[in-house]
Amino acid sequence: MFGRERQWENGVPWADGFIAVDWGTTNRRGYLLAPDGSLVDETEDDRGILSVPAGGFPAAVEQLRRRLGDKPMMMAGMVGSNRGWVEAAYAPCPAGLDALAAGLAWPEEGRVAIVPGVAQQADDADVMRGEETQLLGAAAAGDVPADCLVCHPGTHNKWVRMQGGRIASFRTVMTGELFSLLRERSILADLLADAAVDDAGEGEAFDRGVAEGLRSDALLSDLFSVRARVLLGRLPRAEAGAYINGLLIGHDLRVGLRLAEGGDQVIVMGRPSLTALFARALRAAGRDARELDGERAFLHGARAIAERVA
Amino acid sequence: MFGRERQWENGVPWADGFIAVDWGTTNRRGYLLAPDGSLVDETEDDRGILSVPAGGFPAAVEQLRRRLGDKPMMMAGMVGSNRGWVEAAYAPCPAGLDALAAGLAWPEEGRVAIVPGVAQQADDADVMRGEETQLLGAAAAGDVPADCLVCHPGTHNKWVRMQGGRIASFRTVMTGELFSLLRERSILADLLADAAVDDAGEGEAFDRGVAEGLRSDALLSDLFSVRARVLLGRLPRAEAGAYINGLLIGHDLRVGLRLAEGGDQVIVMGRPSLTALFARALRAAGRDARELDGERAFLHGARAIAERVA
Repeated sequence: MFGRERQWENGVPWADGFIAVDWGTTNRRGYLLAPDGSLVDETEDDRGILSVPAGGFPAAVEQLRRRLGDKPMMMAGMVGSNRGWVEAAYAPCPAGLDALAAGLAWPEEGRVAIVPGVAQQADDADVMRGEETQLLGAAAAGDVPADCLVCHPGTHNKWVRMQGGRIASFRTVMTGELFSLLRERSILADLLADAAVDDAGEGEAFDRGVAEGLRSDALLSDLFSVRARVLLGRLPRAEAGAYINGLLIGHDLRVGLRLAEGGDQVIVMGRPSLTALFARALRAAGRDARELDGERAFLHGARAIAERVA
Repeated sequence: MFGRERQWENGVPWADGFIAVDWGTTNRRGYLLAPDGSLVDETEDDRGILSVPAGGFPAAVEQLRRRLGDKPMMMAGMVGSNRGWVEAAYAPCPAGLDALAAGLAWPEEGRVAIVPGVAQQADDADVMRGEETQLLGAAAAGDVPADCLVCHPGTHNKWVRMQGGRIASFRTVMTGELFSLLRERSILADLLADAAVDDAGEGEAFDRGVAEGLRSDALLSDLFSVRARVLLGRLPRAEAGAYINGLLIGHDLRVGLRLAEGGDQVIVMGRPSLTALFARALRAAGRDARELDGERAFLHGARAIAERVA
């Protein structure tokens, strides 16, 4: 059913290479892939979709072509949202690569395709855009088992149950976004001024925060208590940032690990600095964790979807 | 022991009236009280402590005197914090009016006193500044029982266990601050654009949010799910703000009601628009709730402390 109504110009894009684009809210990454699928060139800039003015996507895409070459493009991420270029309707769970290929939106027919996000239609409704390409790319490449739990940390962390190589169910936790909000302008801002969400070398204070976040379900109270402990001399100011980061990640794990079945290994996929932090927290929680580079998984996914519409 | 080393000029301030000042982070309220304790005049402006430049408190106080008269002043709130005028060290729990009077800081000897905050020195460390004056004022006036649970909603909600007319223990939940952060600049901002934290007429969507917040301990996931439900057409966009507000308040109640003993009535003290919202949520949670005006309680407290140093 794929590749009849919808297909690439000239039939097989990888015969001449193509460009994969991971286009998010605040950043954009483009990758030029050779006909054999290998990575030839790449670029990253801050032209996320929020920086593109109304009607500005064709020009923003031309800029990418000037940088990487005039090739067909496979895009994923928020570029397919209702704030992006063309909306690509969500594929429902369980979702695999075939469903993503069937649901592509084509802002330039035969030249530019946008991968749909994935939606969970249930009382615990949820959505993702961009992670699906990484998740299913990793599964297609055999980098993750067909059945497993994946943690994908980021602004909106995703915990994903994979079944039979498809995205079966998932849950988003706004951990990264809350960390940013607290650091930018909350009562905790001065305690977080020197803390980075992806600083893996945070040591013992981070681990204590994780343990507390795993134990307690009173996040908005625990956070304020950190400030009180600093004011009362019960916690060194220099440790507060790492402790708060651990507290947030511990809360995240409490929620996400509900998708675990038994004691299975958790695959932590994404940016290496972030996956290191979550893997450390998972091990502190008594879980086996394996890190996987999200960029590599994204390229696997873009190739696998492109092949399906050839 | 009070009123020997430290006392008002002329011995009895209320013989000629005095000014009570509730001086917070972003706002300031001044009240001129007559010798009989009755309210003569009042003023409110946005000269919270964060708007006062270094060394600027004497000038900011002069402005208050020009507005309300040249009287002795009793101040409470963040003006006594390490970012305020003069730091008034926290009184430890359990804290009563005598402890507050004994711990006054005097930026102008005999003329201006600042009420200390109250601290809970324990693993669940916590601090308050400003609420103590309301809480103990209400107790002194007989507006709350000597033993009760008080909910004081605000930027940093306080849940306070009163015992024997003193502040025995308490817990802060950052509900109001998180609501503001989410509305100002989060992924949920557009859903919250029309929502007010103190809009009590929010109806059924608010109540459903409260129920979910009481039930679930996955706040950072539940919040994101609201957005997903709107995107997927499972929740009308117009209801999302009220639902999120209810969700946050339900989470707040889950935490705060742990200080309840049996099914006792909860006193909700503070700004009337906010107390109405929390009282509604408490009743939805099956609790008896009684509202109390925080301003009236503050004036009771300021008077009672002033009397103790006369």
